[in-house]
Amino acid sequence: MLMFRRVAAARRCFSTSAIANANRALYYSEHGPPPSVLRALTYPNLPAPSPGTLNLRVLLSPLNPSDINVIEGVYPLTPKPTAFPSVDHDVFIPGNEGLAEVTETGPSVSGLQKGDWVILTKPQGGTWNSALNVGAQDVVKIPRTEQLTPVHAATLTVNPPTAYNMLRDFVDLQPGDWVIQNGANSAVGQAVIQIARSRSLKTINLVRNRENIEELKKELTDLGADHVLTFDELAEKSTRAKDIRLGLNCVSGKPTALMARYLGQDAHLVSYGAMSKQPLSLPTSLFIFKNLTCQGFWQSRWYTSRSREEREKMVNELVELITSGKLKEPKHEVLTLPKGDSDAEVANKVRAVIAKMNEGKYGRKVLLRIEEPDD
Amino acid sequence: MLMFRRVAAARRCFSTSAIANANRALYYSEHGPPPSVLRALTYPNLPAPSPGTLNLRVLLSPLNPSDINVIEGVYPLTPKPTAFPSVDHDVFIPGNEGLAEVTETGPSVSGLQKGDWVILTKPQGGTWNSALNVGAQDVVKIPRTEQLTPVHAATLTVNPPTAYNMLRDFVDLQPGDWVIQNGANSAVGQAVIQIARSRSLKTINLVRNRENIEELKKELTDLGADHVLTFDELAEKSTRAKDIRLGLNCVSGKPTALMARYLGQDAHLVSYGAMSKQPLSLPTSLFIFKNLTCQGFWQSRWYTSRSREEREKMVNELVELITSGKLKEPKHEVLTLPKGDSDAEVANKVRAVIAKMNEGKYGRKVLLRIEEPDD
Repeated sequence: MLMFRRVAAARRCFSTSAIANANRALYYSEHGPPPSVLRALTYPNLPAPSPGTLNLRVLLSPLNPSDINVIEGVYPLTPKPTAFPSVDHDVFIPGNEGLAEVTETGPSVSGLQKGDWVILTKPQGGTWNSALNVGAQDVVKIPRTEQLTPVHAATLTVNPPTAYNMLRDFVDLQPGDWVIQNGANSAVGQAVIQIARSRSLKTINLVRNRENIEELKKELTDLGADHVLTFDELAEKSTRAKDIRLGLNCVSGKPTALMARYLGQDAHLVSYGAMSKQPLSLPTSLFIFKNLTCQGFWQSRWYTSRSREEREKMVNELVELITSGKLKEPKHEVLTLPKGDSDAEVANKVRAVIAKMNEGKYGRKVLLRIEEPDD
Repeated sequence: MLMFRRVAAARRCFSTSAIANANRALYYSEHGPPPSVLRALTYPNLPAPSPGTLNLRVLLSPLNPSDINVIEGVYPLTPKPTAFPSVDHDVFIPGNEGLAEVTETGPSVSGLQKGDWVILTKPQGGTWNSALNVGAQDVVKIPRTEQLTPVHAATLTVNPPTAYNMLRDFVDLQPGDWVIQNGANSAVGQAVIQIARSRSLKTINLVRNRENIEELKKELTDLGADHVLTFDELAEKSTRAKDIRLGLNCVSGKPTALMARYLGQDAHLVSYGAMSKQPLSLPTSLFIFKNLTCQGFWQSRWYTSRSREEREKMVNELVELITSGKLKEPKHEVLTLPKGDSDAEVANKVRAVIAKMNEGKYGRKVLLRIEEPDD
């Protein structure tokens, strides 16, 4: 046990003082493809929370593409190392967002109590875990109301804030102004459509052509999209009448150069992804003569650079959009990891889903429900 | 003459009321390669200047790469059409900068008098011309001192301001801060080195490899460059210790993606050219995770968006750098177009130089000295 105590300040450390094996976490010991390196572990109850911290029961946690990048080792943030008594080396628990319920509050915690719902605003909190101990300042409480479902709450930390902040932080948009985006069917893209609509902004939404394109167009139009176009349809447009000052990019590559041509003078092109795995490649003349500004947005940076008050204000505004019916649940499915399964069975289930996600076979968000295993 | 009078409000119009054929201009009637479409024309004296305007004698005017783009029709600004009595259609006089001497002031002009030296700050003023009539608000007076040569003055409108403003408008640089630039041997690049040095900023300067690379490195080091590297030498560097917050780009293409990797967190990459004729192509991750901002700079936009006071202040600060020996003349040669030559001979001389420039065979700036032709 000496080793665990010695490094406790630098990493999470699960005590062995509680006996019951009531929790389960997914983890990796070294970076690699998740279908190879992801494992599961059953471990004892958490000790009572130290001053200023909370113990949480995680209810639902999404498998986001960036979580896969974290495990692969190609993401610029990693979880803190965690020490388990039953593993002879440090491990890393993935999971950047999720809905949790407060099970116990430590001394000096105010404004939060047992039974409250919270979401984590500290990046890489390790939510692929049935239990967590976190600082009270690293969560935001959200209301337990009928309109705000567990799925809403579990997916509230990354995608809707990305959409919300990209529509606020770069261009002073007024009702009636236009925004153009690619990857419009992504979770962020769908949030952009809905949040823009709530502000009376108009959206031009680009998607890849596909078999069920008309069905997809209807879905996005029902969410509030003003125009939905494939890249081919955009290329055929000859008029560029609209003065578009904000473009949102999660694709990069050639289709984004095409989109950028539709931006007006002094526009901002904000990137939050690169699904084409191609660079962002634009004619230099757009920068020089049209005064284009290209920037990036990363919700993790937003959280770490803003005060707790700003984080709470933003989350509360999103909650208000959800409870007033203006921001719908993302398309999703829940993957339950049953209490009766062994750690190996649990790990295999998640590995299989990630393998499918990597093949691009999931059009919907997958959320983990990790049941507390039997002792 | 009816036609000329009818459109006088919309274009420059040279009167025939003065008889002497004292002036000569280079012009084009339609866009195309300058070696094909550039012509010269001898024309009469200008009439007396109207209220608020000046008549100028142009002393020296550079052949800038952007002037060639204007003639080719691939530049976003064009000169206003000009009507000459001896030509049956409108023509266009290129030339974006130059040194001129005031020959006559119109009524209501204050602060300027005959014999003053001025430079034009209105884009596309048509300086490839021995005489000009311009609004008094479109020039900035510069001192006639020994240290400020005609070459200094004639090249003061575009390149040094581009360097000066790019070092000011994007990042709040403090003494000791680093700047990285490519195309460091360009006229702007050389001005960047010298202006940075005058502010105690440090520069990393990238150039293409060439036969006389050591000679070039010495030249730029003598101007004040801290480091001069070829792109190959940069690629071999393994350490990226410096926190570089400003990159200046006039190349684009792959070498610029390499340069961008050396920028620190929250950096700005400012483009003012694309000599590689390739797009600016960067990993999207630089925008998202390193918070890179890409912008463009265009001195013409700067002039049109700033007040006369701001323009004068900037020019005066550059004049101060020149007169204190901190900003040297660009490498150059003067092409005199002799008074005794015919219009055809004059046009052929300029066409030949532009053809050579297009082959990349000029490592120095060419300035036109258009002698007033005989009557």
